[in-house]
Amino acid sequence: MKVYVLRIGHRPDRDKRITTHVGLVARAFGAHGFVLSPCDEKVLEKLRDVEERWGRLLEEIACTNSPLKYVKTWDGTVVHLTMYGLPVDSVIDEIRQKDKILVIVGAEKVPREYYELAHYNVAIGNQPHSEVAALAIFLDRLYGGAELYRQPVGGKLRIIPTEKGKKVVKVGEEGPSGGAPGVRAERGRGGRGEGVQGADEVRGHKRGATDRDLGDET
Amino acid sequence: MKVYVLRIGHRPDRDKRITTHVGLVARAFGAHGFVLSPCDEKVLEKLRDVEERWGRLLEEIACTNSPLKYVKTWDGTVVHLTMYGLPVDSVIDEIRQKDKILVIVGAEKVPREYYELAHYNVAIGNQPHSEVAALAIFLDRLYGGAELYRQPVGGKLRIIPTEKGKKVVKVGEEGPSGGAPGVRAERGRGGRGEGVQGADEVRGHKRGATDRDLGDET
Repeated sequence: MKVYVLRIGHRPDRDKRITTHVGLVARAFGAHGFVLSPCDEKVLEKLRDVEERWGRLLEEIACTNSPLKYVKTWDGTVVHLTMYGLPVDSVIDEIRQKDKILVIVGAEKVPREYYELAHYNVAIGNQPHSEVAALAIFLDRLYGGAELYRQPVGGKLRIIPTEKGKKVVKVGEEGPSGGAPGVRAERGRGGRGEGVQGADEVRGHKRGATDRDLGDET
Repeated sequence: MKVYVLRIGHRPDRDKRITTHVGLVARAFGAHGFVLSPCDEKVLEKLRDVEERWGRLLEEIACTNSPLKYVKTWDGTVVHLTMYGLPVDSVIDEIRQKDKILVIVGAEKVPREYYELAHYNVAIGNQPHSEVAALAIFLDRLYGGAELYRQPVGGKLRIIPTEKGKKVVKVGEEGPSGGAPGVRAERGRGGRGEGVQGADEVRGHKRGATDRDLGDET
């Protein structure tokens, strides 16, 4: 199965953060490609930065200024996430049988054509909430939760799950039993570092922070 | 089980949209209360507006300027969502046994105290993505997916899930078999209305749009 996420209707002047979250969710929840429309190099750059630091999970990061054409020429199944669609649980088993899936995530008003072009208009509940959440739940259902355990290729840092505080190791120093040699941030440390699972934590890491830096940046 | 979501570190000048998404996810994914810190009346107002239009799902919408005190005086279990925490799948069964759960969602850097105060630091995968997605997945795991089927109390509008386009009915006109009398938006309509499952769709509806308006606003 190959899954691409197409974010349409992105407004560079006001959607940067939400769209970045959409892209990061695509990456972290098992999509193979992320395509942004219209193009916004800053968002793509942020995603590439995350891939460089945390490892490669996406095969392609791209953009298009012809999103309708992109959808029309997609040689696979088209899924459009919308609160007006059919319950995800009623269609996910069928969708999971497909080879190539394009998941459309709208930003501003979604033109009528997308509803028509989509093979599946899928709702994650029928209440208004967030396209970020909708994409995460859709992919989580699609992969049955297995997406959370994918291991990235390369990159510089890995997190060792811990009860309190932060354990971050450099790639290559994880050690056979899960990080002993590379662990410099002691357990229970906490600190002011980027603990929140949000896009913002990425922002502070452009200078190639090691695990030591993670708790010390302000 | 009673679940509250506490959003901490909100920056009114730049987090309004993300925090609104967090609040809407809390509402749509089964939380009973949403507490914002620090206070930002505009975000709370938006949530109240959604509750008024789409029906009541939250029992409490509140804010606090003493978040640490709020956590310290919480007489229940404290969960902190962080990419450095333990895998959600390894702790969710235990958490599900608790009576009262406070879910902390950070925005900017999360102070060390929260890691210490939390009974569970929980990671939705150990990759950076989005606090909006993290909260959605956590609540989805907590409720085993049942949260998507909760019915709100009152409100003005209900969506009837549909294959293409939009079906929206006024509350009270749903009809016994699912909306026949109230359905004015015909199937296959699509249109430029707010189809995306995002907070933005809420914005255009302040004037009390009926289903007719839903597809016509620009």
